[in-house]
Amino acid sequence: MTLRSALLALLSSGPLTGYDLVKQFSSSVGHVWHAPDSQIYPELRRMHAEGLLSSRPVPWGTRGATKTEYALAPAGEAALIEWQNQPLTYVRDRDPARLRAAYFEWAPSGVAAAQLRAHIAHYDEQRLQTLYMIQALEQRTHPTLARRLALYSEEEREHIVRFKVFAYEGQLAHAEQEIAWAKRGLQILEDIENPGTSDPVNEPGT
Amino acid sequence: MTLRSALLALLSSGPLTGYDLVKQFSSSVGHVWHAPDSQIYPELRRMHAEGLLSSRPVPWGTRGATKTEYALAPAGEAALIEWQNQPLTYVRDRDPARLRAAYFEWAPSGVAAAQLRAHIAHYDEQRLQTLYMIQALEQRTHPTLARRLALYSEEEREHIVRFKVFAYEGQLAHAEQEIAWAKRGLQILEDIENPGTSDPVNEPGT
Repeated sequence: MTLRSALLALLSSGPLTGYDLVKQFSSSVGHVWHAPDSQIYPELRRMHAEGLLSSRPVPWGTRGATKTEYALAPAGEAALIEWQNQPLTYVRDRDPARLRAAYFEWAPSGVAAAQLRAHIAHYDEQRLQTLYMIQALEQRTHPTLARRLALYSEEEREHIVRFKVFAYEGQLAHAEQEIAWAKRGLQILEDIENPGTSDPVNEPGT
Repeated sequence: MTLRSALLALLSSGPLTGYDLVKQFSSSVGHVWHAPDSQIYPELRRMHAEGLLSSRPVPWGTRGATKTEYALAPAGEAALIEWQNQPLTYVRDRDPARLRAAYFEWAPSGVAAAQLRAHIAHYDEQRLQTLYMIQALEQRTHPTLARRLALYSEEEREHIVRFKVFAYEGQLAHAEQEIAWAKRGLQILEDIENPGTSDPVNEPGT
């Protein structure tokens, strides 16, 4: 149940209403563990029922209405540590882009190149998003991080920032590697379309 | 239905019995699209029922028994091209190792480093396996590839080999990037455990 771990991790930055949690999820932990809102609310209720979260009503608006605010209960904190303590299980590769590329001989003319350009566009967007995230973490301006850091000593803050930047640097390196891979694929397709024109070994005088 | 595409792609190398298909799946296309045997057999039967595959009984053993051999029907070949023609949809990131690393402040002492070492071991193994695969493809000794190449002209063979090597080079680059990322994480953990000892900027004379 990794969504559960992601929710525990987010709530370790401080109590949140369900509404705020969903908003902060998509702008923080959701970048490394995506989950649709429709999964988050029922999971919060289950975690509350199991005693991992405590809750209290907080005022909402001006008409005396309330919303439920969730906080990590001691059992939730223990579950967070337990999650970090478990060995990670790796799933075997299921990569649709790699599968596609391995059989490009079946792609109609131009389609393989279009696929690789879409791959580059996808990871270019992720690369930019990740760069912004790393900047907001390093400058400590990311609101979820700022809230979290307020709970710790300066030395601990430094470590927390480094861990988060480290995680996003892995995402950045992955995006950059996918872009480089797809560019290499475009080169291969070009070589196949125009054999001989881009091979410097065949150039006169070399 | 990407398992379906993987099965069509494998069968485009020539007809196979269900038994041989399962064996070849795990040593070829299964490296980029893993599927358990228990999913493969029912999917083959569904594809046959839908007219994507033709079948014929082939002799099995010495007692007059037979096995079912499957082959791409024209509709299966069309489905393979149609698959390559569809734009790829990208799923949002769900990376358990990155999620873990982003909250390493919750990991008991030594556990984060153990997790990163397991990450390195996992991707080291994948790296080696991928290197063997690339070698078997480049030397055209991989049996599934050799069988496939026999169906094509020499020029087409060259392209087919390049596409497959390209796909596995992406897997290799990914494995190497994950290893480099985890090594960087181990360095960060060491810096935190022993502050100042590994920072050359603080060394005298620099």
